[in-house]
Order: sequence, then C-alpha cells, then structure tokens
Amino acid sequence: MILRLGHVEVAVMDLEAARHFYVDVLGFIEHLQADGSLFLRATDEFDVWSLKLSERSTAGLIHMAVRVDRPDDLDLLDRLHRQLGLQTRRISEGTEPGQGEALRVRTMDGHPLEFYHEFEEMHPYQGDHVHLPMRYSHLHRGIPPQRLDHVNLRVKDVSESLRYWVDQLDFRISEYTVDSNDAVRVAWVRRSTGTHDVALARSTGPMIHHVAYCTSDSAALFRVADLLSDAGLRRAIQFGPGRHGITNAFTIYVLDPSGNRLELFSGDYIRDLDRPAIKWSAQEYTDQGLMWWGNPAPPEFQQCRPLIDDEWP
Amino acid sequence: MILRLGHVEVAVMDLEAARHFYVDVLGFIEHLQADGSLFLRATDEFDVWSLKLSERSTAGLIHMAVRVDRPDDLDLLDRLHRQLGLQTRRISEGTEPGQGEALRVRTMDGHPLEFYHEFEEMHPYQGDHVHLPMRYSHLHRGIPPQRLDHVNLRVKDVSESLRYWVDQLDFRISEYTVDSNDAVRVAWVRRSTGTHDVALARSTGPMIHHVAYCTSDSAALFRVADLLSDAGLRRAIQFGPGRHGITNAFTIYVLDPSGNRLELFSGDYIRDLDRPAIKWSAQEYTDQGLMWWGNPAPPEFQQCRPLIDDEWP
Amino acid sequence: MILRLGHVEVAVMDLEAARHFYVDVLGFIEHLQADGSLFLRATDEFDVWSLKLSERSTAGLIHMAVRVDRPDDLDLLDRLHRQLGLQTRRISEGTEPGQGEALRVRTMDGHPLEFYHEFEEMHPYQGDHVHLPMRYSHLHRGIPPQRLDHVNLRVKDVSESLRYWVDQLDFRISEYTVDSNDAVRVAWVRRSTGTHDVALARSTGPMIHHVAYCTSDSAALFRVADLLSDAGLRRAIQFGPGRHGITNAFTIYVLDPSGNRLELFSGDYIRDLDRPAIKWSAQEYTDQGLMWWGNPAPPEFQQCRPLIDDEWP
Amino acid sequence: MILRLGHVEVAVMDLEAARHFYVDVLGFIEHLQADGSLFLRATDEFDVWSLKLSERSTAGLIHMAVRVDRPDDLDLLDRLHRQLGLQTRRISEGTEPGQGEALRVRTMDGHPLEFYHEFEEMHPYQGDHVHLPMRYSHLHRGIPPQRLDHVNLRVKDVSESLRYWVDQLDFRISEYTVDSNDAVRVAWVRRSTGTHDVALARSTGPMIHHVAYCTSDSAALFRVADLLSDAGLRRAIQFGPGRHGITNAFTIYVLDPSGNRLELFSGDYIRDLDRPAIKWSAQEYTDQGLMWWGNPAPPEFQQCRPLIDDEWP
Repeated sequence: MILRLGHVEVAVMDLEAARHFYVDVLGFIEHLQADGSLFLRATDEFDVWSLKLSERSTAGLIHMAVRVDRPDDLDLLDRLHRQLGLQTRRISEGTEPGQGEALRVRTMDGHPLEFYHEFEEMHPYQGDHVHLPMRYSHLHRGIPPQRLDHVNLRVKDVSESLRYWVDQLDFRISEYTVDSNDAVRVAWVRRSTGTHDVALARSTGPMIHHVAYCTSDSAALFRVADLLSDAGLRRAIQFGPGRHGITNAFTIYVLDPSGNRLELFSGDYIRDLDRPAIKWSAQEYTDQGLMWWGNPAPPEFQQCRPLIDDEWP
Repeated sequence: MILRLGHVEVAVMDLEAARHFYVDVLGFIEHLQADGSLFLRATDEFDVWSLKLSERSTAGLIHMAVRVDRPDDLDLLDRLHRQLGLQTRRISEGTEPGQGEALRVRTMDGHPLEFYHEFEEMHPYQGDHVHLPMRYSHLHRGIPPQRLDHVNLRVKDVSESLRYWVDQLDFRISEYTVDSNDAVRVAWVRRSTGTHDVALARSTGPMIHHVAYCTSDSAALFRVADLLSDAGLRRAIQFGPGRHGITNAFTIYVLDPSGNRLELFSGDYIRDLDRPAIKWSAQEYTDQGLMWWGNPAPPEFQQCRPLIDDEWP
Repeated sequence: MILRLGHVEVAVMDLEAARHFYVDVLGFIEHLQADGSLFLRATDEFDVWSLKLSERSTAGLIHMAVRVDRPDDLDLLDRLHRQLGLQTRRISEGTEPGQGEALRVRTMDGHPLEFYHEFEEMHPYQGDHVHLPMRYSHLHRGIPPQRLDHVNLRVKDVSESLRYWVDQLDFRISEYTVDSNDAVRVAWVRRSTGTHDVALARSTGPMIHHVAYCTSDSAALFRVADLLSDAGLRRAIQFGPGRHGITNAFTIYVLDPSGNRLELFSGDYIRDLDRPAIKWSAQEYTDQGLMWWGNPAPPEFQQCRPLIDDEWP
Repeated sequence: MILRLGHVEVAVMDLEAARHFYVDVLGFIEHLQADGSLFLRATDEFDVWSLKLSERSTAGLIHMAVRVDRPDDLDLLDRLHRQLGLQTRRISEGTEPGQGEALRVRTMDGHPLEFYHEFEEMHPYQGDHVHLPMRYSHLHRGIPPQRLDHVNLRVKDVSESLRYWVDQLDFRISEYTVDSNDAVRVAWVRRSTGTHDVALARSTGPMIHHVAYCTSDSAALFRVADLLSDAGLRRAIQFGPGRHGITNAFTIYVLDPSGNRLELFSGDYIRDLDRPAIKWSAQEYTDQGLMWWGNPAPPEFQQCRPLIDDEWP
C-alpha cells in the first residue's frame, strides 16, 4: 500500500538563509517559492519537489508524507486510523503544489504524517525528444543531492511504535538495536527495498533527528564538507564523513542555519522486504553500528528538533 | 508477486577460462563449484549466488530466475502458465544450491524462466557481531561487481511479449522505443523500482543479448576496461564506457571468453512502478537513446547468443 | 631554465559562444575580459589565468607560453634564439594581464612561443586567513577543469624539432613512437615531472592538435560528456572517454564551438626527468598506445587547426 | 640537485604482521624480502621499491633517502656535509637492492638521510610491447597506494632546521605555521612541485610523525577505512578521512601493527618552487589548517616515533 517516503516539510527560521544553504551551497534545485515556503527537489527525482522549507519561529519537523500505490488507499488508511482512535483529515488537491487529494494523521507515536497518491512529475521530454529530469547537469552545482532517502525520528517506545508502523502500515524492519535488556532501542523500517524510509529511536517523545538525501557516490560526501567549509560554513559540519555499520551507507551529517540536521547518505544495500531483520547489541551498536570505522559521535549529535505544531491533523 | 530478477545461468565452453575472466580479473566472488557449474555472487548481494556458469558446447542463456514474494505464489504461477497453454515443471528444493522448491516454465516468448521463493542468504553475523556480506573489501579484487541488475532478451514480437510480461506477470514498462510505424521495438520492464529487470527487443526469435551487473559508481566502469586491458584481454571490451539515454545509467559491454556479453551498469534512476512509460522514437533511440553522448555501437553489438536447450521446462 | 607550460592563447570565432562552452558548461573560471579576449583559469591554478580566448576570423593557436625559473633567463633565451637564426621580440610588462616582461619567438619548427617569468598569482588569503585559490568549490560548476597540462602540436619533422626542444631548451622525452622505418613520429616532451608539457607529431607543417587540461579524477571525464550532452552540445564530443596507453592518463577530446580541440586529461604518471624515454612501435601505437583499451579514433581526430598569424614574433 | 623523496626505511616489530597490513590489506606490492626486510612499492612508481620495512625491537624511522639529479652530486653533498661538521659515509652499490652508490649522513637536525642517484626501475615493456608498471590492475588489491609522497618529521628548532634544508639543500617552503610569537612551528618543504617532500614540526628532538603515500582520488581514502575495518583492524584508523587546509590534500592517518603512522594523501596542489611561502597563524592552523573542515585531532595524533639507531651514518 505505502510505496515510499515522498516528501518532508521542515521549519526554518529564515527562508533566505535556508535558500543560501540548500540551493546556493549544497545544490538543491528550486521548484518554486510560495506562501512562505520554498519547494526543492534533488537532481534524480521525478517528483517536482521533495523538500518543503517553511518559515516558522523555531526549527523542526512540520510533516512528512508517504506515497501510496492507489488512489483508494487513502480511504483505507482513513478508516484504519479512525479504528486506531486517531484523528484524520482530508486535504484537497493542490493544498501542496502538484499534489492531489491527501490524508493527514498524527501517528500513534505522535508524528505528523501525510498519505497521498497523485503527485506531479517532471516532464521527461523536451519537444519531441526524451530529456530525463536528471540530465540537466550543466545547470547543477553543489553536491548535488540525488534523492530523498529517509527521516530519522524519535519516539517514546520503539516497540510500541513498531506495532503501528509494522503491524498497521506493513513497514518491514531491516535492522534494529537492542539495549542491555534486549528491548528495541532503534529500528530501521522500510517499504522500499533500500535499508529504510524511516528510523525510529527511543527518546523522551516524538522529535526529529534528521532528514537524509542520497548522493551518487562517496566522493560526494567529501564535496559536502568542502562546499560548506569553502563557503565559510564549516561549523555546519557535525559528524562524518564516515560509513555506517547499520545500513552500510556512507554518511555525513550537517546542520542547516536553523539547526535542522541533514544527512547525506550513499550506497546502502538493497534487500527483499521479507528478509529477516538484522540485530545489533547495545555494545556493538556503539562500537561499530553507528560508524563502522569506530569513530564516535560528538555529544551534540544526540540533540533532536521538536515537531512544529501546525494543528496537525 | 514477482519481486525481482534473482539469478541467471549462462553456458560457457571452458569453465576455467570463465573463472579467470569472472573471478580473477573482474572480481566476482566464488560461492562454490559443483557438477560442472561455477556459482558466483557480487559483493553487495545477500543471496549466496546470482550467476551460474555451466559448461556446455556453446555459449548462451540456460535459464533466468525471478524471486516471488510468497511460497504459494509458485502454485498461482503454475496454474497461470497452464492456463496460458504452457508446460510447467516443479523442481525440488536443492536442485540448485541454496534454493527451495521452484517452478520452471518456458515463457510465451520462448525463454527459460524459473520462479522461486526460498533462497539461502549470506549469514550477516560473525560470532556475536553483525558483519554484513558486503563488508569483506579486504578480500575483494577487480571491479568488483555489486549486484545482478537485469537481462536483455530478444523476442520475435515485443508487443506480443508484453501481453505476457505486463498483463500476466504484472511487470511495468519504464521506457520503450518504437519503429517508424509506431510499433514497439524494445521495452524495458520491471518489478523492482529501478529501470528494468528485463529488456525485450525485437529480433528473429528468442535469444539473449546480455546479462548486467551493477557497479558502485562510474569510476568502476573505467576499472572494467583497465582490468581487461591490463590482463591482456582488451578484445573483450565491446562498447563503452558511456551513458545510456534510456535508463540514464553508465555502461560498458564486454564479452566473456565464450562470447557471452556482460554489461556493467551504474546509476539508473528509481521511479514508482505505476508511473507512465517514457517513449523514444526510432531516430532519437539511435541518436541518443542507446548512448546519450551520441557514440554509435559497433556492428558486432547486434549479435546475440542463443538459448541453450536443457530440456526446459 | 624552463619550468612548465604556463598559458595558451587560442583563436575563437565567437567570444560569447566560447564563454558559454568554456565557462557556463565546462566550468572554467573567468578572470577578466578585455580587448576582445577572455582570460580563464582552472580551479587549482595559482596563476590568475592560463587560457586566453581571442576573437579572430578562424580558429587555431595564437601562441603558447612557458614560465622560466629566473628573470634573466629571458636574456639567455633571447641570445640563444638569435644564435639559432630566429627572430625574437621583447614584450613589455602588462602586455598580457598579470604578466611581466616577456620574450616572443617563433620556434625552429614554426610555433609561436613566449617565455616569461613574472606572472600574477591568486592571493591565497582572505583577510587574516589563508584561503587557497582552489577552495571556492561553492562557486564552481561544470567539470571543473583543474590545471593546464599540455599542448599537442604538429611539426614537419619530429627528429628535427627535437634538436630544438631537447638540445636547445632542455626538454626531456618521456615517450615516443616510431614509424616502420624507425623514424620518430610523435614525441612527448617535458620540463615538469608529469608525462609532457608539449607533444610533437609529424604532419605537413606547424599546426595545433589540442590543448589539454587536467581533471581531479576519472569521474570528471564522464562529467565532460554528460555536461555537453545535457546542454545540447553532444556533437562536441569527439573521442573518449578512454585511457591512453602512452602517458597512462584518462582522456576525452571535445571540440569548442569554433572547432578547437580540448582534451580533458587525468592521472598520467610522474617520473624523474633524466629517466630513459619509452619507445612504442608503429603497430602498438595504433593498437594500444593511443588508447590502451584498443578503441580506434574516428577519422576527424586527425584534423588539426592552423597557427593564427599575429605577426609573431 | 635533490629531485625528490625516494624511499623510507621503517622499523617494524613483526614482519609478518607488517606484511598482512601493508600488502594483504592495503595493497602495497611486494618487490622482495631479504635479510629481515620487506621491500614494497606502490602501483604508480617506476622505482622497484619505495618502502623498506625492517624488523627491529621498536618501531620508528631507520632512514629516508632522496634522489639526486646527477651521480657526482654525491661528492658535492659529501663535501657540503663535512663542511657543516657532519659525519658522512659512502655506501657501495647494492647495499640496498637496486640502488647504486649512496651517501649517508645524519642531518643537522639529527635525521638519518641518504642521497643516491642510481636506482633500478620497473621494466616498462613486456616482450616487444610497452606495458607500463602501473598497468597491472588485475593483480592489485586494497587501496592501492599510488606513490610515496612525503615524510613528516619532528625537530627541536624548525627555524634552525630550515637553515639546513633550505639554505644548504635548496628545499623551498610551500607553507608554514607560526606560534603566537611569530616563530615557525611547522614548515612544509619541497624539491618536487607538489606541496612537500618533508614536513618539519617543532618538538623535543628528532622523531618521525608519519610517512605518506598518495592515492588516485578521494574515494580511495574511504577504502582505507573500509579495508581496515572489514579486516578487523578498525583501531588502526586514527584520524580522518578529511581535508587538510594546509596543502589542500585529502587525508587519512592509520597506524601499522607496530604503531608507525601512515598517511594516505590525495590531491595536493602543484606550484612552482620559487613562489612565496604561505603563512598560517597559530589559531587558524588549529581551526582549519590541519583540517579544513574544522575536525579536531585526537590527542594520540601528537605521538611520534623515535629514530632507530642503526649506527647512522
């Protein structure tokens, strides 16, 4: 039913500073600016946008959205969430640019989630000729980022959350870590065949840790650090580059001018959804799960950003 | 129902020459050798093997296999093929190493196809610790190839073939080319979210053009040509490196010592299965569809290898 | 005495078309435009410019310049050339932007050559802080090219030319090819420790085959072909990407809008200047010397551009 | 007179452990083993070896060697060092494999230095055909390292050392850092056109910090960390990958099993030897000179290894 993560709306405190960071330095492509929001996409996406930056007084997550396979999945999901005792709200076509009718819910673990099916794609032609959306490299700059990959969320009780994401929404666990009592501490869950669309980690309550975009290869992660340092923004680099033990992906984490964490991520593995989850102990997660090369995270890496309440749903 | 292409069995005329080419030079990993066959995998695969090289008197395709989502899909597919008037054969667990029970058919367009669900995976642990199958780079050499991607087949009538692959097996067309009469000449079809698991191109009858493996990045395609040239095998390089217009992937085509064509392929796009197919005209296919940079294929690139009859099904 | 190739002046027929090609698409950096010339540099150069594009009615080479170790080398070279019966001309400081006094000669084999010592460098500081010229990646686009590498010239008699370049100017031969009579057909000569600053190949008389710039790695050569194709300029791609047998460098050759050939070149070897030259036979030059992978050059690759007579010296 | 750094002899405590680390995991090429030493080269070197690992009871530097332009430079250097009041010793041809007669001295700052001219090169032919030493990629594994780049030494007084290296040996300073009293703390000096052959940093006396080898590109630095982690040697990774502010090179530092530090280094700039040195203040060295991205070194990064006294000269 759910195909994949489709887009994310993040709150920034200064839209022009955000544009400088995301567009001018990192190379996100501007689709449009409207009503206090900037709509961006990465180079290899067919969807006309995947990142919405909206001006608010604090940073954080406003909402995330997943694409469903068929239009009538919205009705099924509406019913499902009401049965779970959760409020739902239908959003009309065009509420977000290029998007058809949508369903908004607050998940069982407190996160603002949107379901949609229709979404405008980049036209893959120029006149009579095919010209794929990614084939405008002469106009690209920065990294550039290639594709929205995942969001990493905080929840109060991961096992409880999995009852929602796995049992109700049919996400599958690719990998997970346990604490010394064998209780799940972090789980990576997915509907696509990569390692995850969403990561769920234990904390005091619902928050966001980061949004992640794919890059084409490992060299792009060096470019991230170079671009920020060259532009005088080296303090935005928080952790990496390195390689995750979990997911096997190359990674670097940076902070946007409002403090939202962005991960650039490359080369995780592909595996069928029905395959058994891989389990990491607490100790090996610390030693080589987070970073396969053993490099420890700085303390600030634990900080999360709140959910921004936009009367959701 | 069908998840993806799972493995391919290719006929080679000299198993030791094949091992030198695939394992020693290109860096495929040997899983085992048994009964006149060599079972290989690429570095980022969980499946214990994806390429079976079997000694025969001529080169060509012996069979290809696709993984299905659930064990009882085999029954559904058995019934489906009989309804289509096609012979089927059940194969017991272990007929191929690591594989559970399977179903073998000859497709409507004449190709030897196997369906299976159970398949042994690499153990992702070392003692108490997670150690993913791809994290043995200290033992790798060659390119190395990363993952089986697709097969490219010849069929008599592509439109007719699509009635089978799309209407019966629920493959989706990502891109296609038409001739000057607007009849489909080549179609790229898929069950995974990449650009294709199978390509179907018009010819005199069922044959194979190539098997393709993914690499981690574009630099790996230069390594392919370097490895072969350095090892004194430069005549194995047939076409590329270049970039496909169709699929947007980097590519190089090489011939193994028996004449089987292998493509190394990197960086095609990801797109939801329900999205509309992209259409290329005959002229633009020739001019920039096959190779986006406009480089023409050598005449030998048209040659195909036959199906090797192993009394299939 | 001579340190290296320093800059090249190339004639283009349309300066705006040249700017689009070199700056907008390929990512050369504009230093300044003055008096019908555009002065460009590559990202990793300290010299403020290395490529001068001057508007003329035909394409071709206007002059090339080499940097000498000491200011008084100009006097020595002036005397040397007169002793050889060649005209010389002194050029005052600032005739070309950023350049000190220079000496202009027409070489024994007919090429317009300039010697200079003083040349303005990029300031490596920003306020109190070091900020190297290459660390402006947030402003880069295109490939980008990294550094001027060499020029490839045509001469009437290579052995005769070597009497000038090697015996008089103390260039050293890194590699050379002979014809079936063991006469030198092409020689790669150098003052820097890379494989060459100048290549000299036999033809009907003095002409230029190409100017070459280095890139950071092999992936950059794929970017060259992508950038041109994406910008609708795929017919500018003439040969490659590939790997040279001679010099061991990765390569791609493209044509600017006026028909001047530009090579992008990466990864040739480093070797002490006194080491013996490597000799290629006529046959192996054709088979694997020009391209190690065996790919043959298209016939147009033989075309050269004339020297543009600017009353030199 | 001096051309470049030519080779380094490093003491290891267990030759088999060293071979596993340097050859099996990192991909150095074994030239020969003799008399308790292992002679290795990197892929792109013409010299038959550049790293000599000799078994001793402690780790550290045994000697380093620089190549001189002409055989009779050895006499000039012998005289020079005696005039400086330093002992010298002539070493006969073949004392080290492939090396001609050599001169050994202890430098004014206490380091064991060898000068040589003759050194055996890899034969660049196979039968009648050119086959450059680097074109054996089918036999390579690991990173592989490409070329010896530099040594980083500790000395008691850098300004005093520069009187030797610069004034006597004609090395040139590319960059240097000063302390708050404007006294030189570290200097990068060179005879080749890259950023340095030798770095000299202030400490309590003569010691070695690291030996550095070049890699082909930035992706190779990720491979270093992957290879070591995959082989169960992740504790060998000490600092990086990152980018130096000084030299502009990508870098990662690792420790061999005896504790000798090896840097893998890629992409420093090229600049004429006569150009003015670039000066870094104490604060900016700490903030962005060591690592352009601002990542701080771990305390262990300060540790150095002693000189191993082999009765030098």
